[in-house]
Amino acid sequence: MKFTLEQTDTQTSARVGTLETDHGNIETPIFMPVGTVATVKGVHQHELKEDIKAQIILGNTYHLYLRPGTDILEKAGGLHKFNGWNKPILTDSGGFQVFSLAHRRKIKEEGATFASHIDGSKHLFTPEGVMDIQRKIGADIIMAFDECTPYPCDYRYAKRSMKMTHRWLKRCWDRFAETDPLYGYEQALFPIVQGSVYKDLRKQSAEEIASYDSLGNAIGGLSVGEPHEDMYEMTELVCDILPKEKPRYLMGVGTPANILECIALGIDMFDCVMPTRNARHGHLFTKNGVINIKNAKWKDDFSLIDADAPNPTSRFYTKAYLRHLFAAKELLGQQIASIHNLAFYLWLVGEAREQIKAGTFLAWKNDLVPKLSQRL
Amino acid sequence: MKFTLEQTDTQTSARVGTLETDHGNIETPIFMPVGTVATVKGVHQHELKEDIKAQIILGNTYHLYLRPGTDILEKAGGLHKFNGWNKPILTDSGGFQVFSLAHRRKIKEEGATFASHIDGSKHLFTPEGVMDIQRKIGADIIMAFDECTPYPCDYRYAKRSMKMTHRWLKRCWDRFAETDPLYGYEQALFPIVQGSVYKDLRKQSAEEIASYDSLGNAIGGLSVGEPHEDMYEMTELVCDILPKEKPRYLMGVGTPANILECIALGIDMFDCVMPTRNARHGHLFTKNGVINIKNAKWKDDFSLIDADAPNPTSRFYTKAYLRHLFAAKELLGQQIASIHNLAFYLWLVGEAREQIKAGTFLAWKNDLVPKLSQRL
Repeated sequence: MKFTLEQTDTQTSARVGTLETDHGNIETPIFMPVGTVATVKGVHQHELKEDIKAQIILGNTYHLYLRPGTDILEKAGGLHKFNGWNKPILTDSGGFQVFSLAHRRKIKEEGATFASHIDGSKHLFTPEGVMDIQRKIGADIIMAFDECTPYPCDYRYAKRSMKMTHRWLKRCWDRFAETDPLYGYEQALFPIVQGSVYKDLRKQSAEEIASYDSLGNAIGGLSVGEPHEDMYEMTELVCDILPKEKPRYLMGVGTPANILECIALGIDMFDCVMPTRNARHGHLFTKNGVINIKNAKWKDDFSLIDADAPNPTSRFYTKAYLRHLFAAKELLGQQIASIHNLAFYLWLVGEAREQIKAGTFLAWKNDLVPKLSQRL
Repeated sequence: MKFTLEQTDTQTSARVGTLETDHGNIETPIFMPVGTVATVKGVHQHELKEDIKAQIILGNTYHLYLRPGTDILEKAGGLHKFNGWNKPILTDSGGFQVFSLAHRRKIKEEGATFASHIDGSKHLFTPEGVMDIQRKIGADIIMAFDECTPYPCDYRYAKRSMKMTHRWLKRCWDRFAETDPLYGYEQALFPIVQGSVYKDLRKQSAEEIASYDSLGNAIGGLSVGEPHEDMYEMTELVCDILPKEKPRYLMGVGTPANILECIALGIDMFDCVMPTRNARHGHLFTKNGVINIKNAKWKDDFSLIDADAPNPTSRFYTKAYLRHLFAAKELLGQQIASIHNLAFYLWLVGEAREQIKAGTFLAWKNDLVPKLSQRL
C-alpha cells in the first residue's frame, strides 16, 4: 500500500494525492460513505460504484463484531467477499460506538467492557482484540482502538484519556506487527490523534502519533458537538504536525462546508453518516443549499431533483415525485435521497481535487461555502 | 391498442399473445408488479426494467387519488411522467381498496362513500368519478369500478353486488366513451367479472362482461381467501365464456403455482402484492421452493441467493449476506428480496410463454408446480 502526494495548493494547505491499495486506488481528497453494518443503508453495491462513484467505503468494527459476527466474516473470507464490495474498505475500530452506543461501558487499562445495544450481552474490547477482529474483517485500512472523548470534556479527563489512547495505540501497533493479514492482501493501521479541544493535548497527541511508521494518520474526537471554529483550529494545529507525505483522515466530519474547510487545512480523507442519515429524513444537499424535500412547496415542482448533479439518479426523478415518496413513507424515497446525497459528497471532494490541481481551489471554496448552507 | 393472440396450447388452454400499447408491447402471459402508490416498494424504475424485466406495472386509483392526489398527477402530465416509468401502466379502479382498506364505507347505487385510511377524510367514488380519475392518472389500461365481494359471501349478497357491478360497469363504459385521454396516448377500459364462488353468477357475469366491446377483460373477486380449487373452477368457467381473442386478466393472483395453473386455464395477465410483500418479510421464491432467509441456517451459506436466476441482483449477493441484512433490519435486505421475487415472477411467466410456444407447457408446469411450494 502506498500514498503519493501529488500536489499541494499554494494558497491553502489543500492536497491532491493517490492512495494505492490491493483493492484499487483512492484519489484524495476523498469522502468515504459509511456502511456501518456491511451495507450503506438503502444503497446497492453497484449504485455505490456506478452512480455515486464511491472509491472506498467504511465498515464499523463494533457493529460487524455484533452482527453478523467475526466468525461469519472470517468464514466468508472477509468483509469484501461478504458484502460484494470489491473496492477498498476502511474499518473504524469501534472506539466511538463503544463510548456512544453501547450500554454499561467501563473503561480500564486493559480495554473497554460494554453491553451490546442489541441484546445486552457483555463484551470486552482490548487493543489486541480489536486488531484481531479487524484482521478478520479484513478491511484495507484499519484503525487503532482509542477512546473518543465526548464534548465538552474537562481537561484532566481529556489528558488522562489521551494518554491511555497512546498506550492502547502502542499495544495495537505491536499486535498488528506480530499478526498477518488473513486474506492475501495488505492491511494498513492508522493511529488516531485525540486531545479534545485542548491545543497542548492535540499537539502532544499529534507528535506521538507522528512518531509511528504508519501509512496514514487520523484525527479523532472532533465533530462531536464542539463549535466549528474549534474543529478547524484543532485540525489546523494537528495537520501542521502530522507528516506531509502521509494521508490525513479526519474522522466523522462533516457538513459539506466542514469538508471544504478541512480540505483547505490539509485533510485528505473524510467519513460521515450525515449524507445518508439526513437523506433518510428528506434533507438533500446541493451546490445551492439544502432542500427539505418534505416541504409542501415541492409537491408540484416537476423539475429534476438536481439537474446539475453528476449522477443519473438525481437527474432522473423529480422533486415532486421524491416529495410524494417521503409523504407516503415509501422506501424508494430514502433510497433516492441517499444516493443523491452520497453522489453530491463524492462530487464535492472530486471537484475539490480538480480545483486544487487547477490552482483555483480557494476562490472556488470561498464562493461555494456560503451557498451550501442556504435553505432552499 | 391491440391484442394479438399468437398461439394456444394444444394440451391446455394456455395462450401466447402480444398486447400493443402506446407505451410499448406486452408479451403475454405476463405478471404486473404492483406499484401501489406510484412506486413498486423499494425498487428503482431502472431496476424494474433492466433487472426484473417488467413490461407493465400496476398503479392503484384509491392510493393515487389520496396521495399524491389527482391534481398533482394531472399537473405532472400523468403517472408515467410523474414516476418516470415510460412503459405500460394499468390502474386498478380502487374498488378493492375501498372495500378492504378504507374506513366507514357505505355502498349505494350512486357509488361508495368512504373515509381515507390515512387521515379519515370523507370521499365518494362513483363509476363516473373513477373514470375521470383514471383519465387523469393516465394509465394505458384502466379498470371498471366494481364491488369486490369478500369471501365468504352469501349468495344473495353476491348476486345483488354483481348486478350493481354490472350497472356500474355500464356507467363506467358510457363515461369512458364520452371522454378522451388527456395525454395524447390511448387508454383501454377493462370490465371485471364478479360473482364470488357461485357458478351461475360467474357465468351470468362473464356473459354480461363479454357483451362489451372492450379490448380485454378481467376477473375480480378471486384470491380473496377462497380455496384454490374454487379459484381454479371459477377461472376455468369464466375463461370458457370470455372471448378468446381478448386478453384475460385475473386480478390479485397469486402464488407462483396459482399463476401457472391459471395460465393453463387461459389467463394472460396477473398482478399480486405477494412477491413484494413476502420479500419484505424475507420469503424468497425460487424454482426449487421458498427460502425463509431469516432462518439461522442461512447465516453461513455463502452461495448466491439464486445461482440460476435470470437477473443480476440474485446472482450477486449471497444468502448469508441477505440473511444478515434481514437480521440487522437493513433496508437493503428488503430491496434485494423484492427484486429477487419480482424477477422470479417475471421469469416464471416468460418461461411459461416459451414452454407454450414449444408445446411443452403442460409437462413443464406439472413438473414445476410441486417444487414451488417446498420449504427450503
